[in-house]
Amino acid sequence: MNRWLLPEDIADVLPAQARKVETLRRTILDLYQTYGYELVAPPILEFLDSLLTGTGSDLNLQTFKLVDQMSGRTLGLRADMTPQVARIDAHLLNRAGVTRLCYAGSVAHARTPVGSSAREDLQLGAEIYGCATWEADFEAITLLLKTLSIAGVDKVYLDLSHAGILSGILADQKLNKETIETLYGLLQTKDRPGLNKWATCLPAKTSEALMALTELNGPCAEVLAKAKKVLPQHAAIDQALAGLERLVAAVSSSSGLEISIDLADLRGYQYHSGVMFAAYVDKLPQPIARGGRYDHVGQAFGRARPATGFSLDLLTLSNLSPLKVRKLAIAAPWLEDVSLSKAIAALRDSGEVVIQVMAGEKVEAAEYECDRELVKQGNSWEVKKK
Amino acid sequence: MNRWLLPEDIADVLPAQARKVETLRRTILDLYQTYGYELVAPPILEFLDSLLTGTGSDLNLQTFKLVDQMSGRTLGLRADMTPQVARIDAHLLNRAGVTRLCYAGSVAHARTPVGSSAREDLQLGAEIYGCATWEADFEAITLLLKTLSIAGVDKVYLDLSHAGILSGILADQKLNKETIETLYGLLQTKDRPGLNKWATCLPAKTSEALMALTELNGPCAEVLAKAKKVLPQHAAIDQALAGLERLVAAVSSSSGLEISIDLADLRGYQYHSGVMFAAYVDKLPQPIARGGRYDHVGQAFGRARPATGFSLDLLTLSNLSPLKVRKLAIAAPWLEDVSLSKAIAALRDSGEVVIQVMAGEKVEAAEYECDRELVKQGNSWEVKKK
Repeated sequence: MNRWLLPEDIADVLPAQARKVETLRRTILDLYQTYGYELVAPPILEFLDSLLTGTGSDLNLQTFKLVDQMSGRTLGLRADMTPQVARIDAHLLNRAGVTRLCYAGSVAHARTPVGSSAREDLQLGAEIYGCATWEADFEAITLLLKTLSIAGVDKVYLDLSHAGILSGILADQKLNKETIETLYGLLQTKDRPGLNKWATCLPAKTSEALMALTELNGPCAEVLAKAKKVLPQHAAIDQALAGLERLVAAVSSSSGLEISIDLADLRGYQYHSGVMFAAYVDKLPQPIARGGRYDHVGQAFGRARPATGFSLDLLTLSNLSPLKVRKLAIAAPWLEDVSLSKAIAALRDSGEVVIQVMAGEKVEAAEYECDRELVKQGNSWEVKKK
Repeated sequence: MNRWLLPEDIADVLPAQARKVETLRRTILDLYQTYGYELVAPPILEFLDSLLTGTGSDLNLQTFKLVDQMSGRTLGLRADMTPQVARIDAHLLNRAGVTRLCYAGSVAHARTPVGSSAREDLQLGAEIYGCATWEADFEAITLLLKTLSIAGVDKVYLDLSHAGILSGILADQKLNKETIETLYGLLQTKDRPGLNKWATCLPAKTSEALMALTELNGPCAEVLAKAKKVLPQHAAIDQALAGLERLVAAVSSSSGLEISIDLADLRGYQYHSGVMFAAYVDKLPQPIARGGRYDHVGQAFGRARPATGFSLDLLTLSNLSPLKVRKLAIAAPWLEDVSLSKAIAALRDSGEVVIQVMAGEKVEAAEYECDRELVKQGNSWEVKKK
């Protein structure tokens, strides 16, 4: 075997990209800081039960399992940091007021997710706990759009949905978890013939509403108007539609974006409890970022807290970002000369990159371009253009 | 079970510490950048064989194993990034000249390392490839000392050793890997009675030299003078002592530090091929950072390259660092008011943290202290002391 080969869909991040990822990471976390988001760093490993708390079976299949020699129990290598951050809010911080948290860290997937070519992501996200009203969803969406904007990714399409719609439609039905997962798959792919067949055992009103969902997608005003007409009367549905309307108005007026609604897009439905959103960009079939409200996740940790937020993969964002981070450098000789050492130290303190060239060697560094050199002029060292 | 419990010696990094770690991470990586070190980010998972290439059996025992569903092969969750970075230099970059690389990422240990209380570290390090002479070791040590200095950790003790001494002493003996590991354990703990007993099967000259090693520790000038007298004549030993002398002179004169030598400190001996160094600080029985030359590691990846460097755990460093990163913030109300939004945006653009307080809620954020608030004065919004 070749020892330098990596497992399928696992890759190194090499200098030029690594610096770009680092630059984006800092810029984005700094943005979140100006909004008062506090940074947290949960561990990469946890007990599997904790990692999967409040999530669907998808995440279980996505999570690498390993045995803890110290406890004999099964650990999971995290595939998603959101439940970890919810655990931190619910238990470690244990605050009564509004808490804003952000994070950036490696996550791994046991199998390559559909539409992706990577099993390791650098997940970055922001979450707000303790605020049940639309303002928190609005702040999360605003922050997501600003994140894409400072990464230089424009032409963003925002898609909204709401977990309350399906809850309302199914309110009187007692469906088990597996049945709901089948339904969710049919809705996700908008498989109308499949859905029609599947829904025959449900009351006509319910199956009609489910069929209607598959056509409730497009420009927000249009979809909302149609949804009010075709969906059944139910408090959860009315509330969901009113919530979407409120949010769409605020986001449209602050961002100027055209917003779409896709009421059959229920990815993460079992996890979410309210508004769900996804941002799309050209050239990427999958959303670049996803988020939404998941008020009940903290409950599994013993403390229900309203929660909303979003996350994205920084490596994917970096590939889409036009940001350039090429850094110019100064080449300097390697000599035991106090005046040279002082000149180099002063340049480095001022933020310049100074690469000392060791005896008989050539420097190779794709990340830097030595456009200048430090040369001796009489008794002093001076920077000259190469 | 309590879902919020974490496995033994695995912990979350909460807001105040996370921000401190992030600040240190940036400051240190920026320092390495001014020296021309290029950032790389190898994956957290690799084939086990690759992760353990060129390393001792310690690392094998330290590495979490898991099965790759996609290849059926065993993967390792990295416990050390150094072999990964050597692989990147040897194969991915494949340069002929000097290459400087740096990295920062999570590593995990299957069992809590001796002297530590954490199984997950944030490993940060710098490596130089392609330079076989002392200048590279000098640059690595200089950078390590600067790293501790910008973290505000003073009173640093530097300990040097050299893998060539033991190689020279054992040059004519054919000892297998297990025997050498036993020997290394005896030397490490300076177990003279044990060593004496163990070495009876060796020629008298060899066993005397091994016994002498256990007493060759202390101030560098003294130890070097004594070593020249008591160690046997051998090219590898002479070269090692001359190399140490050269390096000690350069590091002493540039740093002003008193340097110690401990020729029996051979941790990582199987891995290292030349100078080895460790930095100690008060309050920590284990070294805060370790490094040295490991010229043969690349060979296992098909390409031998001179290599030297060091690494440390950023979480441990952050606990020792007196750095304060408390951030002052401005509280602002949540209103749909264009002039308010503009005032907040302007403050955030200037780097201020502005926390909007949602309806009826109290903001709680340990990382920030709201010492000011944004209040309406006539028609404009102004920042007032609280």
